[in-house]
Amino acid sequence: MKKQTFKFTSASVDYYFNASIKQLKEIVDPTHAIIITDENINALHATKFKGFKTIVIPAGEKHKNQVTIDGIINQLIALQTDRKSTLIGIGGGVITDMTGYVASIYMRGIAFGFVPTTLLAMVDASIGGKNGIDVGIYKNMIGIIRQPKFLLYDVSLLKTLPQADWSNGFAEIIKHACIKDAPMFKLLKENTLAKFQKNKELLAKLVERNAKLKTKVVQQDEFEQGDRKLLNYGHTLGHALENQYELYHGQAVAIGMVYAGIISKQLLKFKQADAVVEVLAKYGLPTQMDFDKTKAIEVLKMDKKREKSTINYILLEKIGKGVIKQLPLTEIEQIIQSF
Amino acid sequence: MKKQTFKFTSASVDYYFNASIKQLKEIVDPTHAIIITDENINALHATKFKGFKTIVIPAGEKHKNQVTIDGIINQLIALQTDRKSTLIGIGGGVITDMTGYVASIYMRGIAFGFVPTTLLAMVDASIGGKNGIDVGIYKNMIGIIRQPKFLLYDVSLLKTLPQADWSNGFAEIIKHACIKDAPMFKLLKENTLAKFQKNKELLAKLVERNAKLKTKVVQQDEFEQGDRKLLNYGHTLGHALENQYELYHGQAVAIGMVYAGIISKQLLKFKQADAVVEVLAKYGLPTQMDFDKTKAIEVLKMDKKREKSTINYILLEKIGKGVIKQLPLTEIEQIIQSF
Ligand SMILES: NC(=O)c1ccc[n+]([C@@H]2O[C@H](COP(=O)([O-])OP(=O)(O)OC[C@H]3O[C@@H](n4cnc5c(N)ncnc54)[C@H](O)[C@@H]3O)[C@@H](O)[C@H]2O)c1
Ligand SMILES: NC(=O)c1ccc[n+]([C@@H]2O[C@H](COP(=O)([O-])OP(=O)(O)OC[C@H]3O[C@@H](n4cnc5c(N)ncnc54)[C@H](O)[C@@H]3O)[C@@H](O)[C@H]2O)c1
Ligand SMILES: [Zn+2]
Ligand SMILES: [Zn+2]
Repeated sequence: MKKQTFKFTSASVDYYFNASIKQLKEIVDPTHAIIITDENINALHATKFKGFKTIVIPAGEKHKNQVTIDGIINQLIALQTDRKSTLIGIGGGVITDMTGYVASIYMRGIAFGFVPTTLLAMVDASIGGKNGIDVGIYKNMIGIIRQPKFLLYDVSLLKTLPQADWSNGFAEIIKHACIKDAPMFKLLKENTLAKFQKNKELLAKLVERNAKLKTKVVQQDEFEQGDRKLLNYGHTLGHALENQYELYHGQAVAIGMVYAGIISKQLLKFKQADAVVEVLAKYGLPTQMDFDKTKAIEVLKMDKKREKSTINYILLEKIGKGVIKQLPLTEIEQIIQSF
Repeated sequence: MKKQTFKFTSASVDYYFNASIKQLKEIVDPTHAIIITDENINALHATKFKGFKTIVIPAGEKHKNQVTIDGIINQLIALQTDRKSTLIGIGGGVITDMTGYVASIYMRGIAFGFVPTTLLAMVDASIGGKNGIDVGIYKNMIGIIRQPKFLLYDVSLLKTLPQADWSNGFAEIIKHACIKDAPMFKLLKENTLAKFQKNKELLAKLVERNAKLKTKVVQQDEFEQGDRKLLNYGHTLGHALENQYELYHGQAVAIGMVYAGIISKQLLKFKQADAVVEVLAKYGLPTQMDFDKTKAIEVLKMDKKREKSTINYILLEKIGKGVIKQLPLTEIEQIIQSF
């Protein structure tokens, strides 16, 4: 277990890399902690967090809502959770988002930490302090920005992860490589999904590298005024597709990255659009899709990140260098229609 | 209209004293603002905030809960409220608490301001950034600390205030005088409730003095590590009684202040317990009550401010000087039983 502390505007976060979930009790006193996890993780890994009080919620994005939060709050009250308690979210992004949120509003805010159990949560969702819930079709409509006290990384938890969730996580890793880290892009190109799945050390290194990459971006721009927007690479069109079709987040973002590559080629003479496609395919992600362009454009227009009649679109100048371009909606409309 | 800006840890708040609610549109652009108010206030004062989009909720503490918040969120979405919008709570403490809360979680936090319309909200509830909702019998169980952008003070709104709510507000004013402001205690002693109700200038001055007094206490201790606890004078026993009997908050706090005065006499040789009783009576507040002592003690034991087996009880050394005493529950139990 290797502890490193990262400072954000209003709080410091301890990252425990190369840790085992069994070391959780060295970080938090079980008598003052409550674990929040989902049914899947509880079924697979509960023995590893024996001795902690545990709240188990149903798994999946469709439960990332106020009804589930109400249930958690009632259980917290029943467990006599007080200001000195720490909530620990053990799970994927759904669990970390909800745990961070409920901890931020319970008694006006109590401490919380995460043990991410999906690749996506390890490299993305558990980092940066954004947390919250959905309201009907509106994703992450309700939430707060607040940092966890700690993150514990145990990549051996990923052994039980379904294949689709591996690809989901790799979509964000490829995103990181595209916008900020050309050498990592090379590493991804030279390796395979299977190799990362088999080689725990290689995987732990990759996770740590990505966790630190996202951390750095967030540290430099916690309130998303500038560079943090780069993390939306592939996500603008991605979200529009995800809303409309039954796609995994990673699949939608992959398609989004492919199209952002094409737009980058047109507007910024980006030369490696094909390399992006190649790496995505290598990690089990889709690279083309027939979609209703008019509908997608309509959803884009309603995107909550929209500022008047332009969209901040993330493009690539080259691999490892993402840029923010404020594009008129009309221009985006034209390009998408021309695909 | 007189603008004064006060700095808190993470934000500055503009206070507009001696203002008229009609000047609201000089502070916020109505096209980017949404008012939240309750049915009573809307019925009495809606003409004064014409031109603003308005969300009207049912009045009263029993609606200060998640169900009402869910309704507000759905209306905010329907009104296409975005990150650039400002929510304006026009009302008593129930409205300001809920407006501040919903603004703090909507899209991870949008701007908000208050026009307090009860005396209590003017001198207490709208100041300090605490906001939130109740969960069943648990008051303010859910919430966040976050400051409003502005407070607009228009004491002429109080003309329609029911008599009981005047006394409610004066309970907090008397509290302020007891813990921090001996000259104001004298002022209260020399005047009457009727005089403040009739004399707008005198009232505006009193409101401003109390708003600034609470502001200063909060500024010095935003996260309630020390001096802010003084504001709980009368509230420890007060809350226990309020939960158990059908009392107004101010009435319960008044009884709480009387008993805290007696305890202060016993433990700190406080000499003016009778003066406190006299002033409370002058402003329409009760000063004695038969209550079930054993039950009250039980509720005290479950108080969320409890730290192990002691309670931080606020006592008076003299008028104008409140102190925090950590008392063993057993000692409090004895004293209360001996009343
Ligand atoms: N806060 C942020 O900054 C941020 C960033 C990105 C994504 N997110 C959020 O993250 C969520 C998606 O996260 P996710 O993909 O981790 O989803 P998830 O939490 O739903 O996990 C995916 C599935 O994998 C299961 N699972 C988790 N760990 C497992 C394991 N070790 N073995 C077997 N099964 C396991 C879960 O039960 C679930 O069924 C979304 O709600 C998204 O909004 C948040
Ligand atoms: N956030 C804080 O720091 C803080 C501090 C103290 C109290 N509070 C909260 O404040 C709430 C109590 O506030 P309150 O006493 O203002 O209650 P309230 O908001 O319920 O108002 C009392 C009643 O007066 C009515 N009313 C309001 N303004 C009026 C006017 N000008 N004319 C006629 N009627 C009017 C309301 O409709 C309501 O029926 C509680 O929920 C309490 O928890 C919060
Ligand atoms: Zn993503
Ligand atoms: Zn009070």
